[in-house]
Amino acid sequence: MNTAYSKLWLDYKPLNIAFAGSLAVRCTRRVRRGCTAVSELITALSALLPQAELTFGADSAVFIIELDLADYLSPEEYTISADERGAAVYGGSENGLLYGVFAYIREIIANGGFTRLSRRVRPAVPLRMLDHWDNADGSIERGYSGSSFFFKDGELLVGDRTVQYARLLASVGINAAAINNVNVRGKAVRLITGEYIPKLAALAEVFSKYGIKLFLSVDFSAPMSVGGLPSADPLDPAVGGWWRAKAAELFGAISGLGGFLVKADSEGQPGPYAYGRDHADGANMLARALKPYGGTVIWRAFVYNCSQDWRDTHTDRARAGYDTFAPLDGRFDDNVILQIKNGPMDFQVREPVHPLFGVMKHTGIAAEFQLAQEYTGQQLHVCCLIPMIKEILAFRTYNGSPDDTVLGAVRAIAAVSNTGDSFCWTGSELAAANLYGFGRLCFEPSLNAEDILEEWISLTFGDDEEVKEKLLYILLGSHKAYEDYTVPLGMGWMCKPNHHYGPDPWGYEFDRWGTYNRADREAVGIDRSGRGTGYSELYYPPLCDIYSSPASCPDELLLFFCRVPYSFTLKSGKTVIQHIYDSHFEGYEQACEFASLWESLKDKLPAEVFDNVKKRFAEQLRCAKEWRDIVNAFFHRLSGIEDEQHRKLY
Amino acid sequence: MNTAYSKLWLDYKPLNIAFAGSLAVRCTRRVRRGCTAVSELITALSALLPQAELTFGADSAVFIIELDLADYLSPEEYTISADERGAAVYGGSENGLLYGVFAYIREIIANGGFTRLSRRVRPAVPLRMLDHWDNADGSIERGYSGSSFFFKDGELLVGDRTVQYARLLASVGINAAAINNVNVRGKAVRLITGEYIPKLAALAEVFSKYGIKLFLSVDFSAPMSVGGLPSADPLDPAVGGWWRAKAAELFGAISGLGGFLVKADSEGQPGPYAYGRDHADGANMLARALKPYGGTVIWRAFVYNCSQDWRDTHTDRARAGYDTFAPLDGRFDDNVILQIKNGPMDFQVREPVHPLFGVMKHTGIAAEFQLAQEYTGQQLHVCCLIPMIKEILAFRTYNGSPDDTVLGAVRAIAAVSNTGDSFCWTGSELAAANLYGFGRLCFEPSLNAEDILEEWISLTFGDDEEVKEKLLYILLGSHKAYEDYTVPLGMGWMCKPNHHYGPDPWGYEFDRWGTYNRADREAVGIDRSGRGTGYSELYYPPLCDIYSSPASCPDELLLFFCRVPYSFTLKSGKTVIQHIYDSHFEGYEQACEFASLWESLKDKLPAEVFDNVKKRFAEQLRCAKEWRDIVNAFFHRLSGIEDEQHRKLY
Repeated sequence: MNTAYSKLWLDYKPLNIAFAGSLAVRCTRRVRRGCTAVSELITALSALLPQAELTFGADSAVFIIELDLADYLSPEEYTISADERGAAVYGGSENGLLYGVFAYIREIIANGGFTRLSRRVRPAVPLRMLDHWDNADGSIERGYSGSSFFFKDGELLVGDRTVQYARLLASVGINAAAINNVNVRGKAVRLITGEYIPKLAALAEVFSKYGIKLFLSVDFSAPMSVGGLPSADPLDPAVGGWWRAKAAELFGAISGLGGFLVKADSEGQPGPYAYGRDHADGANMLARALKPYGGTVIWRAFVYNCSQDWRDTHTDRARAGYDTFAPLDGRFDDNVILQIKNGPMDFQVREPVHPLFGVMKHTGIAAEFQLAQEYTGQQLHVCCLIPMIKEILAFRTYNGSPDDTVLGAVRAIAAVSNTGDSFCWTGSELAAANLYGFGRLCFEPSLNAEDILEEWISLTFGDDEEVKEKLLYILLGSHKAYEDYTVPLGMGWMCKPNHHYGPDPWGYEFDRWGTYNRADREAVGIDRSGRGTGYSELYYPPLCDIYSSPASCPDELLLFFCRVPYSFTLKSGKTVIQHIYDSHFEGYEQACEFASLWESLKDKLPAEVFDNVKKRFAEQLRCAKEWRDIVNAFFHRLSGIEDEQHRKLY
Repeated sequence: MNTAYSKLWLDYKPLNIAFAGSLAVRCTRRVRRGCTAVSELITALSALLPQAELTFGADSAVFIIELDLADYLSPEEYTISADERGAAVYGGSENGLLYGVFAYIREIIANGGFTRLSRRVRPAVPLRMLDHWDNADGSIERGYSGSSFFFKDGELLVGDRTVQYARLLASVGINAAAINNVNVRGKAVRLITGEYIPKLAALAEVFSKYGIKLFLSVDFSAPMSVGGLPSADPLDPAVGGWWRAKAAELFGAISGLGGFLVKADSEGQPGPYAYGRDHADGANMLARALKPYGGTVIWRAFVYNCSQDWRDTHTDRARAGYDTFAPLDGRFDDNVILQIKNGPMDFQVREPVHPLFGVMKHTGIAAEFQLAQEYTGQQLHVCCLIPMIKEILAFRTYNGSPDDTVLGAVRAIAAVSNTGDSFCWTGSELAAANLYGFGRLCFEPSLNAEDILEEWISLTFGDDEEVKEKLLYILLGSHKAYEDYTVPLGMGWMCKPNHHYGPDPWGYEFDRWGTYNRADREAVGIDRSGRGTGYSELYYPPLCDIYSSPASCPDELLLFFCRVPYSFTLKSGKTVIQHIYDSHFEGYEQACEFASLWESLKDKLPAEVFDNVKKRFAEQLRCAKEWRDIVNAFFHRLSGIEDEQHRKLY
């Protein structure tokens, strides 16, 4: 494990203001002087105003910051009232106060000094979570930022880097983390045994100081693999008893444990199906074991047939989550959260919003995003996901609820983490924007993406207007550019199999994963209307109607929902084939522009930061050119249609 | 390493004949009683005639076998003169005698007893070699038969299995083996250092008893990686000196060392190009170091640009071997053997014969085949390569030599071994036919494939006529069936990248390996005539003319040499597209027939043998169906042409 790390957006620099005299932090009796909110405030102020004399509560201070708890606030809520002479930050608990302190620090930095401010904020969803796919051996599944900082060679690590990680999370409002891969393999199976308890307790203590609940991914068959029972049948009393005893052991020893995350009956993981039980049986059995301790079971909805015959055009993987879980709505215990990926497939650059968000009205649900850029350039390509996440949270399901958005439906928002032990945490310096933005957006989804990113840029790179403007342009345009030069019109799955990097238009076409484009010389795309697989009918009106016809389906999802000839005219006025050619040439050009904008910032950025991204842009351009030419060649060879602009096709 | 192994074709069973009295082995003074020929004869006779009393030279014996050396025979030559009352086996050396003994044993078994026989045989080429791609860690590159029996965890293994291996090789006339991978990595780099010498000497001693020379694959940059020199420049005197000292050390300590095998400037291996030298410079420098000890440098001609831009239609990988080595003809020292793969690409199921076989008239050359079924079903599919190897050896280059065949041109024949530590040595029980047949064919290329295979079947499975007939049908038809259901008309490279198993028609199309089919909706194949890449012009007339035109090019190589529309009519009378459909359906049906023939032999074969192949046939059929349907779907979607027989296409 690499022990050197940057402070990212918490790298406070002295403010360029005149400040003389003392600065007081005044804690009321309800606020412990040793609590994290206080220490974080002191840390920040010492760095921002190194010339100031910091005191606790001196009446003669030039500026006084009062910290208090307030009963009328919910635990994670905070208020800030400030002007040029003093400030009061109140929290509904020490956690809320900590969020308030971080928010106030942000404001000071953004304004270059103390400012007038009145704010009351509480997080939009109670659970805001990172899912780490870290393995016990120190590797990270779909990790593009180095090795794990939680595990090495089967050992759990708790140290400086863990504290810094907790600070980063708390500073953006994330309050839960599952530290190990949902594919629980090797020594990770034993994470819930006594041998790990002391380290887990130490880790949870660090987390707790920062208001973060510790979650563990568990092996559904642990009663067998760990407990030595002959079965893991959720309805077998011995199995339930084993989990109850296990919960008592874990929650008894680990203060701050949040619960379990479970991937069951999915891609080879064990689950209740082996015993003829369903997912409600499986999840509820675990939930009842955790209930006495306030624990939560987060149960993944990512269940599909991963041994599909590619010849079979009736089975539709996109339907699998709905078909599996919709019939179970209402059957899950109240401490189960069903974690639903943002789309029905698997974190493609463009998918429709998962239909389960509309239909699971009587189930606690979470939206799951993927900051790890598995299908979006693997932290070599810049691809800022925040606008997309915001768009999905705001998506209306039309399910008749007063707030019928995804945000309104969920009790939790989770994301697969993009972190690792690289110096800058996220492999690419620019990928930290996704980590920052995810937390901020979960806490305050009403913020717009541009403001969040601008906040991240200033905190990370300072206040230079040129840097801000150019980076904002790159970040805000990055997802569209990536989509443009990769997979057109919502089709998905044109990447190379297994590692998912780089183009292979038919790499997933004749395989078992349910991921097909069915391109031939006349047409492309899947008819998922009632005339086809029926997937579009899983949405409420008017969505089901909109998606079921090429005439109404949004361009960007056309090939996901419809099968059309290459000559079909999009709403943009272009034909499908010309759109493919144009978007691929334009996406590549856009990436080139990003790279040259970055190049122009050379003198304004620290050398390591500049080089980190510069070398990634070189790879992005190489790879984007492959995407452009291979996808265009693929469709050119199939369709036989020339580019209207006579650009070179292969 | 698995220490259990079968005896393969050396598993002698008692003959079903009446034999009473004593059987004498009479050795002349020139034949040591302890030599391998004698001990192998005793071993065989004891097993074949357990009731016989074996003696050395009793005049009263019922049957006398006389062993002698004869000066008029070349060292590896032998004669057998036998009738029902006695036999004389003479060798030009103990090695020749050993080959004679094994041949005589074969004849006894084939005839079910002593028989009248007069034979004088000498091997067609002096060097008959297996190249093992075993790594020092015990893995085998492109190994489909388990782990290495030469290496485990960096240690060299010498034991019972080594002896049995040497027996198997000698029994079919193989007289050289390179024991480690030509990609010399990890601890294998140190194989030429003192730490391995004792074990190498022990191994070479075992080999020597069976007339086998030990070869080592060496790292061309060993002067740096092992010797600590700043360079491996072949023209640097310090480098030459290092290799001379190294040769003195190795040949001084290892009796029976044959020399080095080198993969240089190929797929990332180091070589003379790094110093602006050519392959003659590199090979000769090593050859001169080995010369004092009679050592040989085997230098691979597998050199090509493996970072090609798929957009580049001018560069042709097929030309690379010729373009690199033809200009060097005449420049190699006489103890260099240039090892040329059978075709210009890489062991595809069908390739033209390598043009270097015709042109390297002043260079010692070897033909290299691949028994390891990398591209031919990985020992899960039955694919007997013996008829193909025979066909290639008999191929006429028309280079003006009195014997203008490949066989006439070569000084050595080598094959990448298909062995490993699986119980039956070759993963599949049926793949042993390739090991057996390769040796027999190298020794006596005038034998026809059918006779060799029949020999192997009787020695392995006994004399049941039904077994013999059905297995022969399977083996002789297996290569065509595999070719039929996989890659049509000589095109190559429609397998999945990296592991090379199963179909992926465009898996190699947009990559850096120089392996393209350029299929589009109108046409398929590469024009390699003078109008195209010019590759066909590398052959002597009339081949260059035959290959340069679709009208004259043999069907089975059409898409290798020519680009034609799907509607082009083959010599068979079928269109290209209909041929593709038909051959794929027929190849699959043929595989099904093989599987059911095997099934019908259940009661006539040992259960382990039957099960070993039965489970492989299940996989072969599964995979053949994928090949059939995916390749047909690929061309159907591109061409839009329906199957005349209206079979289901996807």
